[in-house]
Amino acid sequence: MAVRSAWLAARKGHPVPTQLRYAREGVVTEEMRFVAEREGLDPAYVRAEVARGRMIIPANVNHPELEPMAIGINARCKINANIGNSAVVSDVEGELEKLGVCLKHGADTVMDLSTGGGIVEIREAILRASPVPIGTVPIYQALEEVARPEDLTWEGMKQVIIAQAEQGVDYMTLHCGILLEHMPLVAGRLTGIVSRGGSLTAQWMLHHHQQNPLYAHYDELLDILRRYDVTISLGDSLRPGCLHDASDAAQFAELDVLGELTRRAWAKDVQVMVEGPGHVPMDQVAPNVERQIKVCSEAPFYVLGPLVTDVAPGYDHITSAIGAALAGWAGAAMLCYVTPKEHLGLPNAEDVKQGIIAYKIAAHAADIARHRKGARDRDDALSKARYEFDWKRQFALSLDPETAQRYHDESLPQDVFKTAQFCSMCGPKFCSMNISREVEDWNAAQGPRPEGAAKPAGAPRG
Amino acid sequence: MAVRSAWLAARKGHPVPTQLRYAREGVVTEEMRFVAEREGLDPAYVRAEVARGRMIIPANVNHPELEPMAIGINARCKINANIGNSAVVSDVEGELEKLGVCLKHGADTVMDLSTGGGIVEIREAILRASPVPIGTVPIYQALEEVARPEDLTWEGMKQVIIAQAEQGVDYMTLHCGILLEHMPLVAGRLTGIVSRGGSLTAQWMLHHHQQNPLYAHYDELLDILRRYDVTISLGDSLRPGCLHDASDAAQFAELDVLGELTRRAWAKDVQVMVEGPGHVPMDQVAPNVERQIKVCSEAPFYVLGPLVTDVAPGYDHITSAIGAALAGWAGAAMLCYVTPKEHLGLPNAEDVKQGIIAYKIAAHAADIARHRKGARDRDDALSKARYEFDWKRQFALSLDPETAQRYHDESLPQDVFKTAQFCSMCGPKFCSMNISREVEDWNAAQGPRPEGAAKPAGAPRG
Repeated sequence: MAVRSAWLAARKGHPVPTQLRYAREGVVTEEMRFVAEREGLDPAYVRAEVARGRMIIPANVNHPELEPMAIGINARCKINANIGNSAVVSDVEGELEKLGVCLKHGADTVMDLSTGGGIVEIREAILRASPVPIGTVPIYQALEEVARPEDLTWEGMKQVIIAQAEQGVDYMTLHCGILLEHMPLVAGRLTGIVSRGGSLTAQWMLHHHQQNPLYAHYDELLDILRRYDVTISLGDSLRPGCLHDASDAAQFAELDVLGELTRRAWAKDVQVMVEGPGHVPMDQVAPNVERQIKVCSEAPFYVLGPLVTDVAPGYDHITSAIGAALAGWAGAAMLCYVTPKEHLGLPNAEDVKQGIIAYKIAAHAADIARHRKGARDRDDALSKARYEFDWKRQFALSLDPETAQRYHDESLPQDVFKTAQFCSMCGPKFCSMNISREVEDWNAAQGPRPEGAAKPAGAPRG
Repeated sequence: MAVRSAWLAARKGHPVPTQLRYAREGVVTEEMRFVAEREGLDPAYVRAEVARGRMIIPANVNHPELEPMAIGINARCKINANIGNSAVVSDVEGELEKLGVCLKHGADTVMDLSTGGGIVEIREAILRASPVPIGTVPIYQALEEVARPEDLTWEGMKQVIIAQAEQGVDYMTLHCGILLEHMPLVAGRLTGIVSRGGSLTAQWMLHHHQQNPLYAHYDELLDILRRYDVTISLGDSLRPGCLHDASDAAQFAELDVLGELTRRAWAKDVQVMVEGPGHVPMDQVAPNVERQIKVCSEAPFYVLGPLVTDVAPGYDHITSAIGAALAGWAGAAMLCYVTPKEHLGLPNAEDVKQGIIAYKIAAHAADIARHRKGARDRDDALSKARYEFDWKRQFALSLDPETAQRYHDESLPQDVFKTAQFCSMCGPKFCSMNISREVEDWNAAQGPRPEGAAKPAGAPRG
């Protein structure tokens, strides 16, 4: 039976079954307990964070298969992986394969961004197979049902949102914050509007000369979301699409609206996170995070990268992992991955894997830099195994054991080298780790070490 | 004819032919002019920076094939790629292939770290083929010539250093700063001494109970180096080999010695850079760089990564590119690359390429974050090409055009898609860049944009 089935059955009939509402009522839900266990936090603390809106537990009441997780500055930094087809490529099997890769390598949430055919079937298959929260961008499906973007209507959007909520989608990116009055601020940008949902909304607004329907009908939208405890992920339609456009008036004007919408969601007991850029030079990453935290009253920040340079298509998992690590360190709660195919094509399963590993690295480095309790334990265990030439344990502790072992075995495949006191990089004569043991022995022979030796002399560490 | 042949011929006979000495005498050498042109700096400024020791131009008088380059906080951030065989694998052809990869992808300097057979022949082939400075670690060759590390002698080391200087090596890593009195500080580390040269020196000192010969004979060593204008790269024998050991007493005790040795080298007109870690949590990277700048009187800092987590063997080009980008932003002058094979085996040509691209990204991101003049020009040009769907120009401006095009062509190989107004990631209906043009047209139709629209509202940018 699915993890949450019994929990949900016992709560059936609650008019506002959101984790935020329970938390505010002083209830520690099973989801909160589950999360507390995973994070090594006190359940009462988790409840308090959720009540404050600083931590979210995306958990649709129709997603019993979910193993709950939390997103917030006081939980471990999370990563999201995007999958989904496009009109040009992929299908159900291809997407389930990608989901498997996401789960195997440790994505904390998965977004199904399908925009091609079979959207409903793909999503159903993914939801029923997924223990991690599933996010969507409903406008993609809404658009499939009309001929042209300008034919989109609030009623059409609403039906799609309800249908997806019924299926069990845990969070939805909704581009509620882009307004008609923001359009002039886009002039002078190098790459205009790069958010797909945002650009479609802009197109609609310009065609009709009317306000963004998701903004105009925001209260009604919230009423739907809270019936299912769908978390709203406030899309950043005006995020920069290149370094040139970073931190401009358009981006920050929308952010101000997202702050307002955050507080309106909370007023209706709807869980919220806020999406962020995108493409940002390194020195602007922390200021961007700090600004969001302030403007959005500490609602979790969910950033896309950001890429810290635009010159490396084909390697944007790396350009963006640098920005993501900085963002996580500064307080971003979740990092949306970028694959090597970004800007070039739809990622395949191998690209998904490369993106996830790069982001596991970024999130983990951020946890260490924030001095989270126990964040460095795995690093220390792996380093110890390395020093002891325990190759098998070193592989096992790696983010990607198969690749680590394969690289090692390329030069020294024989089993005897799994216990060798060296590797092919330096060979036996030059192995510093080997020599180090002699220094250790010598030190041991000298008796107790002097005061202060080998104690950290730098910044404090967790 | 080689670039520097005529310059060097005209200067023959100068008793101290180092760039530092010329700079101090007020002479702007051809090398300084060449560097100024490459960097977009005034030649007089380059001379002043070299005279101050804050910028170096590694340029052995016996390396006429060199196209001079500069390393220093006020030049673009540079990257070094290591090649070289080990006792276990590789040969001359393999190393020349790696050199070709280094040059093709833009390594600014190359270190030949060969420790296997044929060291002299490999180095000769590399030097004669290389327009970039070549660095070495002479102790590797010295060790090949004795049976055991403890048989090394100052005389033996000296002969190797002279022979390599005669060949034209531009800079040498010499582990002069590790002292007998540092040994007790190593106790309590998780991974001891991870520098190969450093651990060999430690082994020698413990065996003989004598001071490090390179420290004891430092003045004589400098007299040799300055005859050829070999830059000394002061090795950091006690750099941390894991996060646990970062910023400890051992590391900083050696750094203090390196500061002293920097000033002694300057007193003899020898150019110097200082090597740095290694493995460092993100929040300690900038403090490490700032400390080196202070302790070593602004001598250029040449860091290895650093890796910001230890859990990702197989992906250490990424874990370390994060640290390298932070270090470059904080003021490190050159970043020594790390390949995906680090800790696992000797890199092959493909690994070398992956390491270089990751580090080109890190150095470029650092230049942008430091607001270097023109640093973002290529990013803006590529973003413009992207927005204009000029795929061919986008590929051409990429760090790795072949990979960018290959990824694009995986889904849409036909030539018609090189001019398509979309890619396989979103397909035509969802292309935000496409829609953005409609917003642009609408804005244009509205007349002049309001004051302040689309102007940067964040941190100042170069």
